[in-house]
Amino acid sequence: MKIQYTLLKTDKDTKARLGKIKTNYGTFDTPMFMPVGTRATVKSLAPEELKEAGSGIILANTYHLWLRPGEDIVAKCGGLHKFMNWDGPILTDCGGFQVFSLIKNKEKDITEEGVYFKSHIDGAKLFLTPEKSIEIQNKLDSDIAMSFDECPPYPVSYEYMKKSVERTLRWAARGKKVHNNPNQALFGIVQGGEFKDLREYSCKETVKMDFDGYSIGGTSVGEDKPTMYQMIEDGIRYLPEDKVRYLMGVGDPIDILEGVERGIDIFDCVLPTRIARHGQAFTHHGKINFNNAQYKEDTRPVEEGCDCYCCKNYSRAYIRHLISVDEMLGGRLLSIHNIRFLIHLTEEIRKAIEEDRFASFKEQFLREYQSSKSFF
Amino acid sequence: MKIQYTLLKTDKDTKARLGKIKTNYGTFDTPMFMPVGTRATVKSLAPEELKEAGSGIILANTYHLWLRPGEDIVAKCGGLHKFMNWDGPILTDCGGFQVFSLIKNKEKDITEEGVYFKSHIDGAKLFLTPEKSIEIQNKLDSDIAMSFDECPPYPVSYEYMKKSVERTLRWAARGKKVHNNPNQALFGIVQGGEFKDLREYSCKETVKMDFDGYSIGGTSVGEDKPTMYQMIEDGIRYLPEDKVRYLMGVGDPIDILEGVERGIDIFDCVLPTRIARHGQAFTHHGKINFNNAQYKEDTRPVEEGCDCYCCKNYSRAYIRHLISVDEMLGGRLLSIHNIRFLIHLTEEIRKAIEEDRFASFKEQFLREYQSSKSFF
Repeated sequence: MKIQYTLLKTDKDTKARLGKIKTNYGTFDTPMFMPVGTRATVKSLAPEELKEAGSGIILANTYHLWLRPGEDIVAKCGGLHKFMNWDGPILTDCGGFQVFSLIKNKEKDITEEGVYFKSHIDGAKLFLTPEKSIEIQNKLDSDIAMSFDECPPYPVSYEYMKKSVERTLRWAARGKKVHNNPNQALFGIVQGGEFKDLREYSCKETVKMDFDGYSIGGTSVGEDKPTMYQMIEDGIRYLPEDKVRYLMGVGDPIDILEGVERGIDIFDCVLPTRIARHGQAFTHHGKINFNNAQYKEDTRPVEEGCDCYCCKNYSRAYIRHLISVDEMLGGRLLSIHNIRFLIHLTEEIRKAIEEDRFASFKEQFLREYQSSKSFF
Repeated sequence: MKIQYTLLKTDKDTKARLGKIKTNYGTFDTPMFMPVGTRATVKSLAPEELKEAGSGIILANTYHLWLRPGEDIVAKCGGLHKFMNWDGPILTDCGGFQVFSLIKNKEKDITEEGVYFKSHIDGAKLFLTPEKSIEIQNKLDSDIAMSFDECPPYPVSYEYMKKSVERTLRWAARGKKVHNNPNQALFGIVQGGEFKDLREYSCKETVKMDFDGYSIGGTSVGEDKPTMYQMIEDGIRYLPEDKVRYLMGVGDPIDILEGVERGIDIFDCVLPTRIARHGQAFTHHGKINFNNAQYKEDTRPVEEGCDCYCCKNYSRAYIRHLISVDEMLGGRLLSIHNIRFLIHLTEEIRKAIEEDRFASFKEQFLREYQSSKSFF
């Protein structure tokens, strides 16, 4: 079967939604944050640690897995779940964002047929099309595949964005046509930049194609926060209530709250693991940085009251030590904490929606989160 | 209490010994291999993974922990066990080997009082003495501390080695005098290089001081294997039967077998974790290297029949992928496998001694281990 989304409840005062997604690899509640397993591994972590952190679904990158090890090897190993030993749901992106973000403009050529570009690894000439992206994702056998889109930077001209939106619609139709994995859902992606009418157009036309879910694309590409929140609103109002809404590449706690408030169900981002490897941890009082010597004799856990493996077993002094001597376990423990922090945040959010108090929850969280870090 | 060693049995045909060491943090059987947690972490691994691999005891480095985070911070955090969340036994080395191996000759000055040298991190001037080494280890609160010794390279002149041995004996006496942790055993270290009479002298004089256990030092410093095995024999024959014998810095499967055959009880080495990070795995048919493309479609586990977490859950193709894209999980999974391989080897050794068939076990293991790698 493909995924089944059930809208359970909408918050009394906001557009925040409580839902449930059933997949062949288990059911999870939404809003949900997805840890990113770029190359079929959430950096430094084992699947059991993601489970323990409460991850309902994870993301893997089509572009990276296409290049290495190649989708045929993953398929030969029984698909992505078996390959990486993760028996929960997986969403694969389409590769469009990596082509946008990893490849320099002069090394790519976007045509109607697809994108010609040079590999970021060895400069080899590559050609990615909507059909190829879907074919790779079919073979990876993820639970949710994404349509291949162009993800323009911010800002581009109205004329460029209009042409890009129209092409992305044609690409979405081409991808949908060749999609042939009966156990895999296919999501459409809404583009349109900061242009209200293009967002409306992109959204309505994408919805007409009747995808299994929809994503708001083209955010986190250089725009400021108010613009990003506006982009979400401009797209989401035209999406059907009974389908999942996914905000791509967003994982800052504040942005998750802003997204949920506007009706987003799922999020993904490398942020929690990336900042972990650089020694930073989320706490309810803002981020703290273990490169800072102030933690070297601090016997408290990273965050008092946190139920993650890191906080239950290790002191800030130990984490500070590991980070300062560049030991891998430091990034690993902080990755566990940061992922648990975001998943726990979505748990708190779900409870708040359940109890019709999302707005006050958000306000309280932000007050605490944005309070002075000097408190620590 | 300090540790209690019980000699349970000696093999019928060899000097291989089966024993048991009781500590305040649990009891383990010998022969045993100790994973190395250089800076209070066995690189990339969590304590639970070491437990699951069967590790009865681990090692931590006094020199590294002295420099960062400093023994006072570890003490403030409740000692090394609590600091690193390892509730099993810990042995700390004395720092002598690091001064020997990390510091260039022109940047150290070995005097009667101790060793003046420059930090390998920032060039700061440091001074390590027998008293200081013991004081640091007392504060780290390991279960077994080592006497501070000089570890000369191979080869040095007879005259140099003789003076060095005599000084190391005086250092051992000075260290023993200041040792004052009632829960910590203190081991003496036998030196003497490849000189039979100096090994005998070093050994007999060290034993006279009545330590809680003894280590064969000065191996793995550049000598060939037959010389190393001879060094072990030349020292061990003068050690008391009722005390533990520790061979420092040795973890190659063949060397473990050769050491056990000569009466060694415990071993330590960074080898299993270091080669893991470089993509290599121990198997009963020799080492295999995942940088090699031949494994990229290999759906078998690293070693068929191995009971480690890596082999139970992942394919060679996945490990090869992780290693080839330099993902941390690759080194982590191979570290688990390699540590389990050595611990499992000591389990097999113990069973063989129990059943008076160590010599035939060793012969069979070596035949298989040294067989052609092309088999894979």
